[in-house]
This record gives sequence, C-alpha cells and structure tokens, in this order.
Amino acid sequence: MDSNFEKRFVLSVLVENHAGVLSRVAGLFSRRGYNIDSLTVGETHTPGQSRMTIVVRGNEYILEQIEKQLAKLLEVIAIRHCTPSQTVMREMALIKVAAPADKRAGVIETANIFRAHIVDVAVDSVVIEATGSEEKIESLITLLDSFGIMELVRTGLTAMSRGENVL
Amino acid sequence: MDSNFEKRFVLSVLVENHAGVLSRVAGLFSRRGYNIDSLTVGETHTPGQSRMTIVVRGNEYILEQIEKQLAKLLEVIAIRHCTPSQTVMREMALIKVAAPADKRAGVIETANIFRAHIVDVAVDSVVIEATGSEEKIESLITLLDSFGIMELVRTGLTAMSRGENVL
Repeated sequence: MDSNFEKRFVLSVLVENHAGVLSRVAGLFSRRGYNIDSLTVGETHTPGQSRMTIVVRGNEYILEQIEKQLAKLLEVIAIRHCTPSQTVMREMALIKVAAPADKRAGVIETANIFRAHIVDVAVDSVVIEATGSEEKIESLITLLDSFGIMELVRTGLTAMSRGENVL
Repeated sequence: MDSNFEKRFVLSVLVENHAGVLSRVAGLFSRRGYNIDSLTVGETHTPGQSRMTIVVRGNEYILEQIEKQLAKLLEVIAIRHCTPSQTVMREMALIKVAAPADKRAGVIETANIFRAHIVDVAVDSVVIEATGSEEKIESLITLLDSFGIMELVRTGLTAMSRGENVL
C-alpha cells in the first residue's frame, strides 16, 4: 500500500484512569498536528481502567508513529489498531428534528426504518436516538435533513474486536 | 446547596473542529486536577463544528471555574451545563460476554430484557450493544457479570436538551 495514502484509522486504547491521561493522549496527537476525527472514553469493568476509541486520519507511517508514541505513555496499558473486518464499530447519535404536527408521521416513519427511537417529544420537534455503523448514521442524517435538523450530537465510533480476542 | 458537595456535572460544548482543540480542552481540566469521568466528541451537522459531552466531578465552584475557563478558549462556540430534568442523556456500551452453548440462551434473554442487541456471535462469546441511561447500562452490566464479562467499552454519556432549545 502507498504509505502516503491518507485514510482513517480506529484505535482502541486501554488506559489507567488517572487525572490528565486524556490530556496527555490528546496532546500527543495535537503536538504532531494529527487531527482526531472522534474520540470516546468511558470506564471499563476493571476499576481504575478506562478505554478510549480514537479515530484519526493519516497514512501508515503516521499510524506507526502514533502507536509508538502512545505505547510510551505510562498510563497506556494496551493499544489495538482496529481493522474493519475484525471489529464491531458502532456509533450513537441524538438528532433533534423539526416535527410540527403535519410532518411528525414522516419523521417517525423515517426513524422506524432505521430502527431508531424517539426519546423526546416536544410541540414542534422530536429527539431521535440512532445506533449503528457510521454509514447508517450518515444515511439517517441525510434523510432527516429534509425535515430540518435542529441539533445533532454524535458519540463518535466505539469499537470492539469480534470473536474471543480481548484487548 | 453546599458548594463543597461533590457531584457529577454534564457539559455540552460546541467547538470549532481545529487540530488541537481536544488537547486544549482536556489540558484545561488536567492542569486544574479535575478528572474527566467520560468524554465524547463527534461531528455535528454544521461542517467544521464538533460537539463534546464531558462528565466531570466537582462542586458548584469548580463547575463555575470550568465554564469560565472553557468560555475563554477561542475554539469554544457555546457551553451548556446539562441538568437531568432538561436533558436527554444516553450512553452506548459494547459488552463481550462469555456465552458457551449451555449459557447462550440466558445471555440472549438478559439482553432482550434490556432491549439490547447481539451484534457479534463467536463460538464461546457474544458482543451485546446496549443503549440507554447510565443506570440502565450499569444494571445490564451487573446482570451480565454473572455470565462473565470478557470486555467492555462504553462511549460515555452524550447529551441533548429536551424540547426546542438548541445549543
């Protein structure tokens, strides 16, 4: 593969949950000018350990550098480069859509097609929760855009290897 | 309210998606020794803007300081302190559970009760995707723990105001 070809990489990083670990990880990316497309960090079932899923753009050389630099951080316990075929990658989005009475049925129908859920209803709007691959979320956003998206928040990708492998 | 009483705050922060913005936001928390419980950052429907949901522990004074400091960052467009009654707060988790043939039905039944989905199946394990409030995710984790949780990744909370308000 041409190492100059820029693409998106998904990294799972298991870290000790110290104050400042997120800052050190984020700083490592920003000092090198690598922009993070998305990042999620949450607790694991092991007390004191958190797990990050980071989506970053770059080429194979940049990926290698990032992995090396992350491995040097004291708080980093394990790193995995998640390849699409070996990984479950999912995202959640909350989407507030304009839905006055005459449009509401259409909005709900669109949500149903994507197995998305209505989690809040107001007079002229609804909040839809959708979960799935990035492509699915993007498709739903495109369709809902015709009704008028008022507000959108996405978690960013979260990733777990398929099968019995454990980070 | 006693300002020394430590509790958890949820902040929605709309930012310009420059390289380094995550590092500056995370650095602001770590320099002051404020630990972040969870953080998600993803794109919005406005090109060039991302939105973060940050869960942080502290008292009312710390919250005020954080809001002031965040507002000083050039990339920060808007901040909202999300109160539970006015906000939809949801989280997604991927949970890999040991599920050999004789236990699989029990695992699937537990997932169904929580309206969670099986997103990967291997010989001796399944990956479950669950979405909901933190409490719901915690309850599911507690129940699945009896089968053996092999791996757990949580997005951390994502938040959107109820009704027609927009950040």
